[in-house]
Amino acid sequence: MRILVINPNSSSALTESVADAAQQVVATGTIISAINPSRGPAVIEGSFDEALATFHLIEEVERAERENPPDAYVIACFGDPGLDAVKELTDRPVVGVAEAAIHMSSFVAATFSIVSILPRVRKHLHELVRQAGATNRLASIKLPNLGVMAFHEDEHAALETLKQAAKEAVQEDGAESIVLGCAGMVGFARQLSDELGVPVIDPVEAACRVAESLVALGYQTSKANSYQKPTEKQYL
Amino acid sequence: MRILVINPNSSSALTESVADAAQQVVATGTIISAINPSRGPAVIEGSFDEALATFHLIEEVERAERENPPDAYVIACFGDPGLDAVKELTDRPVVGVAEAAIHMSSFVAATFSIVSILPRVRKHLHELVRQAGATNRLASIKLPNLGVMAFHEDEHAALETLKQAAKEAVQEDGAESIVLGCAGMVGFARQLSDELGVPVIDPVEAACRVAESLVALGYQTSKANSYQKPTEKQYL
Amino acid sequence: MRILVINPNSSSALTESVADAAQQVVATGTIISAINPSRGPAVIEGSFDEALATFHLIEEVERAERENPPDAYVIACFGDPGLDAVKELTDRPVVGVAEAAIHMSSFVAATFSIVSILPRVRKHLHELVRQAGATNRLASIKLPNLGVMAFHEDEHAALETLKQAAKEAVQEDGAESIVLGCAGMVGFARQLSDELGVPVIDPVEAACRVAESLVALGYQTSKANSYQKPTEKQYL
Amino acid sequence: MRILVINPNSSSALTESVADAAQQVVATGTIISAINPSRGPAVIEGSFDEALATFHLIEEVERAERENPPDAYVIACFGDPGLDAVKELTDRPVVGVAEAAIHMSSFVAATFSIVSILPRVRKHLHELVRQAGATNRLASIKLPNLGVMAFHEDEHAALETLKQAAKEAVQEDGAESIVLGCAGMVGFARQLSDELGVPVIDPVEAACRVAESLVALGYQTSKANSYQKPTEKQYL
Amino acid sequence: MRILVINPNSSSALTESVADAAQQVVATGTIISAINPSRGPAVIEGSFDEALATFHLIEEVERAERENPPDAYVIACFGDPGLDAVKELTDRPVVGVAEAAIHMSSFVAATFSIVSILPRVRKHLHELVRQAGATNRLASIKLPNLGVMAFHEDEHAALETLKQAAKEAVQEDGAESIVLGCAGMVGFARQLSDELGVPVIDPVEAACRVAESLVALGYQTSKANSYQKPTEKQYL
Amino acid sequence: MRILVINPNSSSALTESVADAAQQVVATGTIISAINPSRGPAVIEGSFDEALATFHLIEEVERAERENPPDAYVIACFGDPGLDAVKELTDRPVVGVAEAAIHMSSFVAATFSIVSILPRVRKHLHELVRQAGATNRLASIKLPNLGVMAFHEDEHAALETLKQAAKEAVQEDGAESIVLGCAGMVGFARQLSDELGVPVIDPVEAACRVAESLVALGYQTSKANSYQKPTEKQYL
Repeated sequence: MRILVINPNSSSALTESVADAAQQVVATGTIISAINPSRGPAVIEGSFDEALATFHLIEEVERAERENPPDAYVIACFGDPGLDAVKELTDRPVVGVAEAAIHMSSFVAATFSIVSILPRVRKHLHELVRQAGATNRLASIKLPNLGVMAFHEDEHAALETLKQAAKEAVQEDGAESIVLGCAGMVGFARQLSDELGVPVIDPVEAACRVAESLVALGYQTSKANSYQKPTEKQYL
Repeated sequence: MRILVINPNSSSALTESVADAAQQVVATGTIISAINPSRGPAVIEGSFDEALATFHLIEEVERAERENPPDAYVIACFGDPGLDAVKELTDRPVVGVAEAAIHMSSFVAATFSIVSILPRVRKHLHELVRQAGATNRLASIKLPNLGVMAFHEDEHAALETLKQAAKEAVQEDGAESIVLGCAGMVGFARQLSDELGVPVIDPVEAACRVAESLVALGYQTSKANSYQKPTEKQYL
Repeated sequence: MRILVINPNSSSALTESVADAAQQVVATGTIISAINPSRGPAVIEGSFDEALATFHLIEEVERAERENPPDAYVIACFGDPGLDAVKELTDRPVVGVAEAAIHMSSFVAATFSIVSILPRVRKHLHELVRQAGATNRLASIKLPNLGVMAFHEDEHAALETLKQAAKEAVQEDGAESIVLGCAGMVGFARQLSDELGVPVIDPVEAACRVAESLVALGYQTSKANSYQKPTEKQYL
Repeated sequence: MRILVINPNSSSALTESVADAAQQVVATGTIISAINPSRGPAVIEGSFDEALATFHLIEEVERAERENPPDAYVIACFGDPGLDAVKELTDRPVVGVAEAAIHMSSFVAATFSIVSILPRVRKHLHELVRQAGATNRLASIKLPNLGVMAFHEDEHAALETLKQAAKEAVQEDGAESIVLGCAGMVGFARQLSDELGVPVIDPVEAACRVAESLVALGYQTSKANSYQKPTEKQYL
Repeated sequence: MRILVINPNSSSALTESVADAAQQVVATGTIISAINPSRGPAVIEGSFDEALATFHLIEEVERAERENPPDAYVIACFGDPGLDAVKELTDRPVVGVAEAAIHMSSFVAATFSIVSILPRVRKHLHELVRQAGATNRLASIKLPNLGVMAFHEDEHAALETLKQAAKEAVQEDGAESIVLGCAGMVGFARQLSDELGVPVIDPVEAACRVAESLVALGYQTSKANSYQKPTEKQYL
Repeated sequence: MRILVINPNSSSALTESVADAAQQVVATGTIISAINPSRGPAVIEGSFDEALATFHLIEEVERAERENPPDAYVIACFGDPGLDAVKELTDRPVVGVAEAAIHMSSFVAATFSIVSILPRVRKHLHELVRQAGATNRLASIKLPNLGVMAFHEDEHAALETLKQAAKEAVQEDGAESIVLGCAGMVGFARQLSDELGVPVIDPVEAACRVAESLVALGYQTSKANSYQKPTEKQYL
């Protein structure tokens, strides 16, 4: 089985990190491939960035479908950009890392907090939580004013900030688990979980396991209605 | 005052129709300009189409902001594509035609039905209704299997189909008003309202009046948090 | 076009203020008339006051319908008293200032706070927000213990109190816009907006623009079901 | 203990009927008094009627508080008119018949349908159900186009219509109990329950038992915030 | 009329206390019997305890149905354990003390807080509030880290802790009434109400009055669907 | 890795069937063990059955924890009986088959219908859907009046009934996937999916893959609050 993880921003360093992390949690025999578009925003920190990234992400999916289709796709940005559009393009399972993390947290904890990046994404995160049906389980959204690049510029400081926010979520907001709200936080989950004493969900890892399970269970993206192939029309 | 109506699909015939209709409902002295991208899907009938159209819509907004900014923007496709992204790009009011139609219907009717196009968009319409806070007022969504182009191919037949669906909404589903769920239905509202005896909301007309009012009231898009200008970063 | 603004309390000074403010935001050619009942409570600060005021408001609407019907009605008290009752009495659009303000805020801001008067009205404001479908967008309700008359007794002090509450809403509660939750706050919106840097919605101004738009768009209050004319019966 | 049942319409025949029915379900020693205003609509079939009736209902409560206060009040119209206003006027418990019936049905059935009068009241009934927190338990609202007077004009025909609607609710909509949605249906509950085989809730009977219990338990209307006595002001 | 109060834990001291309290609020002629299983947990402080207690509670109900059926049952633990299971076993009304307290609070106060025991039950209390349809009325849940036994070990200290939590609920959280969230708090309501100046609901007392009313009104547990008698099958 | 599947009813034939099916979908190296209590109801068709089964299920978990703890538990009855109680007893992941199926369906379909057994379980299924946050995605619940034993008595007839109900869900109710709402339907998913053309979710298979993923990801049941070990107390 091969799962194609698409990092929708144009930062190939991040792409390698998430591929490495994902490969370690899937079963023997499951291959993780990872790519990113060569164009688009270096990081995704809002709706404008997301709209641009989605356009290039779609090109990658179209190429993969044409040339070398995987068994499933994972979209590795916590905004789940382009998720419905990609589901229209393929019969294969497509998993967003935010939806995967939020759903998986529900099996091990009654509540969760998302620890993510900049205050400006709060509205979008509330939307993702709502779409995953988890509004009642949400303890808080912590946005410690970290840009996505913070984890590459000064990893130590970023991790400290992250840890502090997560600790507040657990101790003050009643979070029984932490969902890391950015693909760029890859590699921090275990350490944080050990320190906090609650499950910490790495969204890319969670999504790759979900994708792998969907393939193993034989499920394909339903074409009954919402995710039908695009209707034929002229694209100028 | 000048309002720029952007039809996000690449069909210039539709652009002209909506401009004409909008010009007739705004106050004397308000100028409606209308454009569409030269690239992208000819019509928008799903999330894939919407993702492509949003990319080109954004280019039009960026050009308008640079070259000749209007007082407000209207995005003339009932999916409200790119609405949040565009709100990030400008201080000026930006109005989606779906949100405008749904909100305006609430002032004259306790319930409404949306009459729109293909069954595949049901999920997306439910999302729009929910985002407008109108789920409790929704009587039904009627999707009589009309493609967007139907109104250009055989207007008479399309109008009959539309009328039949609207009549069912009023008589069977309890709709006290009808929201036309496609910018391509422009020009039909008055005739339908006369025949049905309930308000029929043309979304482009409603949105242009809302945009005009926002300008007159002196409101600008809030930059406090969700709609801040995109953070600086590299766009490849 | 003529819009009749009815201040449902018996304070004619307020009636003049709201008429002046409203006249400045509508289009050339739109005439704002404003009246208030000669009987009933001087201000409306609860459900009892509202019940009394509604009775007298209805008499004013009945007289207007008989003698000199306007093109639309605006009910100028933030509790939207008698809104459904008045909608039954007329085919013309009827707009409550609270519903108008809450809906209009949604076009320019992802969230809003209401800054209003006495703590006792919290339940009622929550009801209004819910009826407008905006519960998810509500950042907070600020009730700085101001009576409606405060704005006439010591305008300067009242404005300071109001400003402080609004500032807290923006800085602590995440409000991206402010809705002024009392018709008596008329005339403060622009100054507050300039100081706070977010849109501040004057409810009477917003409602008059909405009413004007409904007339221009040709919408009438739906008589399909909920707002039918009262059934014939004996009124003792 | 004395409970004052106020029928807010001006039909004294109905007042007697509800008093008789209520007296039979309360404990020995509990006295039911019943009155109605001499003015206002003969029946209440919409928001306009309700606004007028509320005004006169309030006068009755004010007189009762002044002259001969009971231990609790019951407002005997299924729209629960003036409920919050009356709660402001008194420390004593005030019970609306709709809220009482909806809450009491929850103890004996997982779902319920309301069988009421005219289609025009659907919106208002949905509001009452929502305010009672019972939207998820609502199987259906049946509005068999009966005016309130139908039960006095041709009781047999009205009862047949009612029975048919209730039967449909049970057999087709999944109702596990029936709430009679009009005070004018008093006296029909037992017969209907016997025929349908499910609990049938008479709202006036339910409300009188609730009021009696609130008194016995020593609860008074909370004056902490929402239901404080009206603030002092001028009433012209 | 006889109401059987079942305390589902195995502490007979508590059983006597709740019986005494309940007997004082019901009408003359209503008899309160109270029992508890001889097996199971001494107190119920979580889902595991509740599962064990439910098993033994069911045995008590089966015996009562066989040997000496009462007119109604009250389950005297604030978790409402086994409520749906018991409703399947009998035609008679069955009332949970949590559902009764939450519903009854709505008649005298716009909002309420639950003051209960250990932080671990927060999720379960939120479920109970939601099932009673009262989420919108909930001001807060106060869990001052009291075990159920605290009220028997050092009543004075426990009462002080309880009072402090209730005071915070009223003064800081906007609670207009207090629901005591543990059957073990029996006997404290009046004193607390006097000190706090808001209604304080003792759940066992409220439930017994509700049960008594259901019997007086002639309602039985609906057997239409959800609460049908268990289907015949083998029980090993 | 070893996953212990506990069938909470006392039918060992079903236990074997679910074990066989589960073993086929997990990764090489994952071992499925399956047990059932020797006591309790033969099938679970309501809240009473569920309460009894939970008691015996708990005994099995306690024994497993003591004697031979697995890496994760799966509770193989679509009512998810005892789920929270079992989560209190162990640090290991515990997965209910209903929650797993409902969550997993969300990745491949916008909507789903549950096809289950007897009409009496409708309320309980709605609760499960709500707890999984999937109410908005629910197309319908189909209850074709099949007892759990039907699949063992006349498999062919039961399968036909099931197929018919699922077909209606897809064609009339808008279901884009089908969740099989009974562990006894094991083995039917693939055939149904082939015939219906949409994903059909076998709940036991889905739950075993989820449990396997939780172990692989290193998540344990959070002990932060809701699922703490039972407090110490006397169990008689």
